Amino acid sequence: MGRPTVLLLLLAILTPGAAFHVPPAMKALSSLRWSASSTFRRTVAKNYSVHYIQQKVDHFGFSADKTFKQRYLIADAYWKKNGGSILFYTGNEGDITWFCNNTGFMWDVADQLKAMLVFAEHRYYGESLPFGNKSFRDSRHLNFLTSEQALADFAVLIKHLKKTIPGAKNQPVIAIGGSYGGMLAAWFRMKYPHIVVGALAASAPIWHFGNLVPCGVFMEIVTKDFKRGGPNCSETIRSSWDAINRFSRTGAGLRWLSEALDLCTALTNAQDVQHLKAWLSETWINLAMVDYPYECDFLQPLPAWPIKVVCQYLKNPSVSDAQLLQNIFQALNVYYNYSGQASCLNISETTTSNLGTQGWSYQACTEMIMPFCTNGIDDMFEPHAWNLREFSDDCFKQWSVRPRPAWIITMYGGKNISSHTNIIFSNGELDPWSGGGVTKDITDTLVAITIPDGAHHLDLRARNAFDPTTVILARSLEVRHMKQWIRNFYASLRKKH
Amino acid sequence: MGRPTVLLLLLAILTPGAAFHVPPAMKALSSLRWSASSTFRRTVAKNYSVHYIQQKVDHFGFSADKTFKQRYLIADAYWKKNGGSILFYTGNEGDITWFCNNTGFMWDVADQLKAMLVFAEHRYYGESLPFGNKSFRDSRHLNFLTSEQALADFAVLIKHLKKTIPGAKNQPVIAIGGSYGGMLAAWFRMKYPHIVVGALAASAPIWHFGNLVPCGVFMEIVTKDFKRGGPNCSETIRSSWDAINRFSRTGAGLRWLSEALDLCTALTNAQDVQHLKAWLSETWINLAMVDYPYECDFLQPLPAWPIKVVCQYLKNPSVSDAQLLQNIFQALNVYYNYSGQASCLNISETTTSNLGTQGWSYQACTEMIMPFCTNGIDDMFEPHAWNLREFSDDCFKQWSVRPRPAWIITMYGGKNISSHTNIIFSNGELDPWSGGGVTKDITDTLVAITIPDGAHHLDLRARNAFDPTTVILARSLEVRHMKQWIRNFYASLRKKH
Repeated sequence: MGRPTVLLLLLAILTPGAAFHVPPAMKALSSLRWSASSTFRRTVAKNYSVHYIQQKVDHFGFSADKTFKQRYLIADAYWKKNGGSILFYTGNEGDITWFCNNTGFMWDVADQLKAMLVFAEHRYYGESLPFGNKSFRDSRHLNFLTSEQALADFAVLIKHLKKTIPGAKNQPVIAIGGSYGGMLAAWFRMKYPHIVVGALAASAPIWHFGNLVPCGVFMEIVTKDFKRGGPNCSETIRSSWDAINRFSRTGAGLRWLSEALDLCTALTNAQDVQHLKAWLSETWINLAMVDYPYECDFLQPLPAWPIKVVCQYLKNPSVSDAQLLQNIFQALNVYYNYSGQASCLNISETTTSNLGTQGWSYQACTEMIMPFCTNGIDDMFEPHAWNLREFSDDCFKQWSVRPRPAWIITMYGGKNISSHTNIIFSNGELDPWSGGGVTKDITDTLVAITIPDGAHHLDLRARNAFDPTTVILARSLEVRHMKQWIRNFYASLRKKH
Repeated sequence: MGRPTVLLLLLAILTPGAAFHVPPAMKALSSLRWSASSTFRRTVAKNYSVHYIQQKVDHFGFSADKTFKQRYLIADAYWKKNGGSILFYTGNEGDITWFCNNTGFMWDVADQLKAMLVFAEHRYYGESLPFGNKSFRDSRHLNFLTSEQALADFAVLIKHLKKTIPGAKNQPVIAIGGSYGGMLAAWFRMKYPHIVVGALAASAPIWHFGNLVPCGVFMEIVTKDFKRGGPNCSETIRSSWDAINRFSRTGAGLRWLSEALDLCTALTNAQDVQHLKAWLSETWINLAMVDYPYECDFLQPLPAWPIKVVCQYLKNPSVSDAQLLQNIFQALNVYYNYSGQASCLNISETTTSNLGTQGWSYQACTEMIMPFCTNGIDDMFEPHAWNLREFSDDCFKQWSVRPRPAWIITMYGGKNISSHTNIIFSNGELDPWSGGGVTKDITDTLVAITIPDGAHHLDLRARNAFDPTTVILARSLEVRHMKQWIRNFYASLRKKH
């Protein structure tokens, strides 16, 4: 089933405020962007210092020698010059202070690893804008927004730190990242093993490219989460699409829908209905990613195990359309109105404001081509085929660039990565991104850690009293590997001298 | 001792016909370019087919989606679809047909490795010009001439071959290259281990960057070769510079020099004398690189062990200036007039015409910053310090770009490469480039093979009745490693299925 052409236009006006105005397939992409920082609101201010380094705008060409200021943060309260280490967060698509404040795992292990924490901002996000407020003006200005350039920034930064911070020179550096940042951490170790001794790649869907995994796997996991959330839950959501479609046939139906779902702006046409359905899909996707075992804040506060709570309202797919959609409304309220303060549901509301939506939209149109699809049978969504041609045309309309879907696999190896070493791939089994992740050991030193009760990079979050045993175990395994890498580094250093 | 400012200008007019009009330090650079194909003239036409692939001009940016035709050659007479292999020559700075016709080693081992031979032309050389005859127009057009882009071309090409040639898909690919091509082979394995199972990097000075090796090592090895060539040989050359300087003080002296050396164009000023000395230095360097054990052709035919022949004329450093320079003339005649057909010596004569001098000059001004220096004590040349600042200014004048001397080490790891596997670094001990090469095993699978009687990548040349035992042994070791990589590849393939 093709995508309605009306959406092609919307893609061209993709802005933070309208990020969900894209079909589910695209949304899954922007969810990746969103997810990494969405899981935190109740951020604890951490004690770090802010720094800047001049980076070449283009590491891979010499005709323009322009530089820009890349921001990075350092926290060295627990750092020991003697026998210490450096944990390097490979910043992803957002403001680095968010990642810094919310990757509690790094703060929790700093003491035992005698570690300096470094958080490097990804170019084109946060304050690290190569061309200031012109950075997103056109494809010429966006031309240097690639994973390769970002990794080169990281490499140059680490060499700079080792050169300028007394005591840092002969210390092992470990890359850590989650989501797209996890992909960067893994790729960083693959491409610059002389700079980082190992990488912890949390919830990194490095195989969600080309045909490496089936395009339906993401939405199937979302669906599984809702199946697990309660009896008939996924079936109820699956039934909702046709119910919406039936209501959408008439003006009266649209009015009823708008009222029943308490929408801030009434639906008036087919395009609005597409938006509504995309927004609903995104909601279910988001719930799957942040199905955490304890109450926590992100866009809106959420209860512990939010899918279970949502599914309490979605127990019966066989009721009337009206009843079914009223139940959906109750479910949505868990997500959008847990605090009870929302006066209406705004389908134009974006999930968070601390992110470079434009940046990720460009990346998703160039290198980060992740095929998504649904068939309505193995998943609870309306069928939607992956259509590269259409996707490419949309990208061209929006950014004047065309995707190169094979490139990432050529560059980073796809499934053929066994010659690399010292990478931990951690994945929560609840996380839809785990479908594109490495969930089985590849070699003794390319290891997979799966967290049965974990959603999107739960292991990178700060320790919590409600952490399931499986994530506690995962973190301790991760630390054990990191300690081994550090020991190996110092052993080989001693051998040299 | 600084470089005479007059040369700054000359750098800006560097063209194939005047390639030696640069001081020895620069010359050593262009010698690298030159060397790889200079060693062959008596080329045997090989049986290959010519192909082209459309490559992105910029693999690392999406704003310009332009493509160009990269040329490559295939020879598959010995290829076996069942249990075979692919030997992939990572083309360097010149016309690929030269390398194809002259890397006899690959042709010699094709049978026993059941190998398809592929020779890929390096972008900006031969016919593989990204912007046709505008490719060298300015730094904007040259912007895509980097080792990273070249490696990406190779990666894309191999994926294309595996996709399109029936039987190639599940075969191991081995990268092979000499000189700069050897660096590319090694780097290719480091950065794309999912694409090549191993690399033979012959005479690859991957450490001739930054402070990884002393800047004087190259010229010291040249000097050692002449010391070995005969009694007092290097001392005689060392004495020649002052003798030239003394003659150059007067017009009569210049006239005498021009006649004594039988120069096609008389010397008239200090600048000409600098050219003469640079040309002489280049001659000695070239002799050191191609000090092969058998008669062979390159720019001019050369006898076996040419340095030994040259040194027969350079036995006495203590004769009069006039006598000494007349002896130098005799020595030069071995190099420039072995055939006896030259009517005069042309210090504007370039060494070979099949090369992209402009391309290498640009690369030597951007990524490939190899420091060279002489002190006149450990070597037989006039003292000449490495001056990055001056070098950078020259580059800026010539190409409007500035070198980034640290980049190659950041990118490819410098001496910290032990986490990689399956690379053979072969070096001839007579080869001045061996000073920047890997001449000791790093690990079990990063091995060094040294060839005591070998000059510049002698091992890549076709087998010859006069081959010293050491190069025969080296080649058999190389084949043994390659066979092991191939066996390992097939063993792991069987395990998968």
